[in-house]
Amino acid sequence: MTRPNLQIALDHSDLPNALKDVKEVGDIVDILEVGTILCLQAGEEAIRCIRALYPDKKVVADTKCADAGGTVAANCRTAGADWMTVICCATVPTMSAAAKEIEEVQVELYGDWTYEQAQKWLDAGISQAIYHQSRDALLAGETWGEKDLVKVKRLIEMGFRVSVTGGLTVETLQLFEGLDVYTFITGRGITGAEKPKQAAQEFQAEIERIWG
Amino acid sequence: MTRPNLQIALDHSDLPNALKDVKEVGDIVDILEVGTILCLQAGEEAIRCIRALYPDKKVVADTKCADAGGTVAANCRTAGADWMTVICCATVPTMSAAAKEIEEVQVELYGDWTYEQAQKWLDAGISQAIYHQSRDALLAGETWGEKDLVKVKRLIEMGFRVSVTGGLTVETLQLFEGLDVYTFITGRGITGAEKPKQAAQEFQAEIERIWG
Repeated sequence: MTRPNLQIALDHSDLPNALKDVKEVGDIVDILEVGTILCLQAGEEAIRCIRALYPDKKVVADTKCADAGGTVAANCRTAGADWMTVICCATVPTMSAAAKEIEEVQVELYGDWTYEQAQKWLDAGISQAIYHQSRDALLAGETWGEKDLVKVKRLIEMGFRVSVTGGLTVETLQLFEGLDVYTFITGRGITGAEKPKQAAQEFQAEIERIWG
Repeated sequence: MTRPNLQIALDHSDLPNALKDVKEVGDIVDILEVGTILCLQAGEEAIRCIRALYPDKKVVADTKCADAGGTVAANCRTAGADWMTVICCATVPTMSAAAKEIEEVQVELYGDWTYEQAQKWLDAGISQAIYHQSRDALLAGETWGEKDLVKVKRLIEMGFRVSVTGGLTVETLQLFEGLDVYTFITGRGITGAEKPKQAAQEFQAEIERIWG
C-alpha cells in the first residue's frame, strides 16, 4: 500500500493570507492546492505565486471546472498548475478537453453521481477522483461514515487514485486504515490550527504511522 | 409575456480584453456577466471593474459555485455582483448558504439533473435556472432542439425564471418563440462578431420583434 500524500487546501479569500499560511507548511506537505475560493478571488495570480514559491511541489488549481475545459486547463497550466479539478456533473467532452491541456485532471464528486458515469471518466482518461464531504453538508451536521468508506473503496477498486477531503482531522485519518487512499486534503485542519506547522507534521506522522 | 433580457457573457481569459469588449456593448445589453473563465483568471478584480463601469446594470458572477456557497456569495457581493451562479450538482445547503449572502442565485444546469431536484432548489428559495448547451458539447456537434425546448418550458412552468445559453445566434432566438424565457445569454455571439455593437443591437431588435 502506498503512503498517501498530504495536500494543503488554500481556501482563503485573499492571497496575502494564503501566502502567510502556506509559508508555514508548504515544505511539509506534498501537494499545494489553490482552493476554489482563492482562485475566484485572486485569479491566476494565486497559482503563479504558489508555483513561484514552491517550484518542486505539485500544484493543483481547484477550479471545479464545469465547462470550457480546454481553455480553463490551458490557463491553469500556463499559470503553473500541474493538475486541476473538474466537477462531476461536467460533460465528458469538457473533461476530455481539460485532460488534453494539463498533466492531470481530478473529478470532484459532489451531489449525485453514478459508478456508470465514473467508468466513463476513466474511459476518457481521467484517473483521479476526489471524494468530498461538502463543507456546507458538514456545517449542516453530516460526517464521515461507513457509507463514505464503501464508496471510496469502490472508486479505488475501479482504478481511480482517490483523494478524500472535508473536515479531516488527525484523528479521522485512522477511519481510512486499510484503504489505498492517494491523498488526504485538508484546509483549516492545518491552517486553522493554533500551530499550523505542528498540525501539518502531526498529519504526516499519522499517515506514516498507518501507511508508512 | 415579458420581454426577455439580453445578457453578455464576458468569457475572456484576461481582463483588458473583456473591458475592451464590454465597452462596446455594455450600454446596449441588460445584464453583464463576469464569465467563469474570467473569474478564474482575474479574480474579484473583474467583478469590481465591471461594477465600476456599469453601476446601474445587473452584474452576474458566473462562479458555478459547487461548495462554500456562503463564502463565495459574500465575496461576490462585496466585489459588486448582484447575482451569482451555482452548479446543479451542488448540495441544497450550499445553494441555501449562497442565497443568504447575495440578492439572487442562479442554478446552472449541466449534465444529469432531475425535476425532483429542481423542485428542491425552488423550495430552498432559488428562483432562477440557466439552461445550458455546454460549450464543449456544442463543439462536439450538439445543437438546440425540441428536447431542450421541452425542458425549458417545464422549468418555466415549475416557477423558475429561466435563462438559456450556449451557441445562441440572432437566428436561433425564434426557436424560443412562445416561451417565457427570462434571459438570453450570449458571449461570442456578440463579442466574436465583426461589429459587436451592431450584433448586440440586432439581438435586442430580434427580442423586441418576437416578445416586445
